[in-house]
Amino acid sequence: MSTLIFGHKNPDTDTITAAITLAEFEKQDGNTDVEAVALGTPNAETKFALDFFKLNPLRVVKTVANETEHVDLVDHNEAQQSVDDRADVTIDKVIDHHRVANFQTEAPLYMRVEPLGSANSVIYKMFKEKGYTISPLIASLMASGLISDTLLLKSPTTTDQDRAMFADLQKIADVDLKDYGMKMLKAGTNLAARSDQDIIDGDAKSFTMGGKTVRIDQVNTVDLNDIYDRQDAIVAAMQAEKDAEGYDLFVVIATDIMNSNSTAFALGEKDKLEDAFGKKFDANDRLDLPGVVSRKKQVVPVLTDSFEK
Amino acid sequence: MSTLIFGHKNPDTDTITAAITLAEFEKQDGNTDVEAVALGTPNAETKFALDFFKLNPLRVVKTVANETEHVDLVDHNEAQQSVDDRADVTIDKVIDHHRVANFQTEAPLYMRVEPLGSANSVIYKMFKEKGYTISPLIASLMASGLISDTLLLKSPTTTDQDRAMFADLQKIADVDLKDYGMKMLKAGTNLAARSDQDIIDGDAKSFTMGGKTVRIDQVNTVDLNDIYDRQDAIVAAMQAEKDAEGYDLFVVIATDIMNSNSTAFALGEKDKLEDAFGKKFDANDRLDLPGVVSRKKQVVPVLTDSFEK
Repeated sequence: MSTLIFGHKNPDTDTITAAITLAEFEKQDGNTDVEAVALGTPNAETKFALDFFKLNPLRVVKTVANETEHVDLVDHNEAQQSVDDRADVTIDKVIDHHRVANFQTEAPLYMRVEPLGSANSVIYKMFKEKGYTISPLIASLMASGLISDTLLLKSPTTTDQDRAMFADLQKIADVDLKDYGMKMLKAGTNLAARSDQDIIDGDAKSFTMGGKTVRIDQVNTVDLNDIYDRQDAIVAAMQAEKDAEGYDLFVVIATDIMNSNSTAFALGEKDKLEDAFGKKFDANDRLDLPGVVSRKKQVVPVLTDSFEK
Repeated sequence: MSTLIFGHKNPDTDTITAAITLAEFEKQDGNTDVEAVALGTPNAETKFALDFFKLNPLRVVKTVANETEHVDLVDHNEAQQSVDDRADVTIDKVIDHHRVANFQTEAPLYMRVEPLGSANSVIYKMFKEKGYTISPLIASLMASGLISDTLLLKSPTTTDQDRAMFADLQKIADVDLKDYGMKMLKAGTNLAARSDQDIIDGDAKSFTMGGKTVRIDQVNTVDLNDIYDRQDAIVAAMQAEKDAEGYDLFVVIATDIMNSNSTAFALGEKDKLEDAFGKKFDANDRLDLPGVVSRKKQVVPVLTDSFEK
């Protein structure tokens, strides 16, 4: 039985590439019986990255206990973002760069969480500490995860360690990472090709805040007007999903990756969001969030505070 | 405001020394404004270690939010084992070697948990990875934590990494670590000098298992008869504390550190303990646990299973 390595539901580029790069780390570490898998199909940005490097999408699994007893998690730790039957297997390893919540084990494990720009940033450090080989392909995949999560090092989640890593990876990789990275990010912003449902669900994560269920989706664009033009349809889709799933608050954050600004739509306990940012929804029912690009660093902590105070 | 670094309640030698060695790591890492503190006074074994190296006990704190906004945790992560007002401060760092449970943050942090013999084993790796200096004193303190938690490398929690670390620390330290270690362990087994209450509480930790509150204490001895002779008084003290605190199960494990065996006394849901080990309490109301020396590895996982199935 292979140890399965996977990231979060609604996989993004960092989650998919981190599963691949951690699997490579494990192999060099002597654990040859590992397989990188995914909890969903790649989004448009990730598909661009995989196609660029001529890689097939990872095998998609919905459950894991039917085929293994051991798993490694990358890029997440919260139960509701993970595989549904996680409680039925043993978590040997967690490599992540998010807050820790809704996570528990029966026995000691290897868990490494660092406040860096990407899960791949942590894996990169593990390679360096052990002196393992980073091939041009692995370097490019690590960079893809970092570029995706930090919007090409522009997000406030970017650390000096991330910038140093990016420079090092550029020396190894066979491609111009900045040029490739901008193309990869733009590939993820072709909203015309995406349904309303895909937009509100494509990068959504669930959180528990003060006992309430909060769903936060983020969608990247190069022009916020592409989102404004579809606001009514998007909000209608949000309402249907909120009714079906029973979220207490559903937020969709549209992020302008060129200008590093965001706008939020929300349904449910919108006052919590207003309280978190100290401002009100405007006449168009939009909450303007200048300078906000990081859900993890700029939204989740203040919103958690707002729910728990 | 200094960042406070501390281990768990009812501090043991690994918890106290890990706070000191992590503080040294932080200073070499450029974070000079840190202070190692403790959530209680040193036990007899730890006092022996501190006296041996002419160190004063750490300052004891009952709360932290009154003096700082930032803390680093060593050797624990579960809320009920930590400082009471932990929710009021930001956890910047966790260095541990236990299971992860009852732990959550609002924002990303640095969390490093490894299945090694001691918290100091993880800190040792951090020093080595960064190339920081391990002085003879710091080496001796790291070894003290490892010796305490692994009963001089005899516990099944001992890994190859721990053994290699011990050999490396012996090259740095000014003392014969095996000889010193045996003396330190024996200093912790002078039960004649300890009250019944101190024996049942000295190394006790609380756990949540299947929604129930489980209290597990461990006491080291060089002769189990020293415990058997006081069984009635010890069980009476357990009963009083169980009534006062409302534990669903209270277990005291007495461990013979010379022969690597244990015996348990218990009150409350004793059937869960019997189920966990597949055997019954004997006519003297003792559960014989041959080969069991590690609460973490040999008791908590099977008992959790027993409560949660």
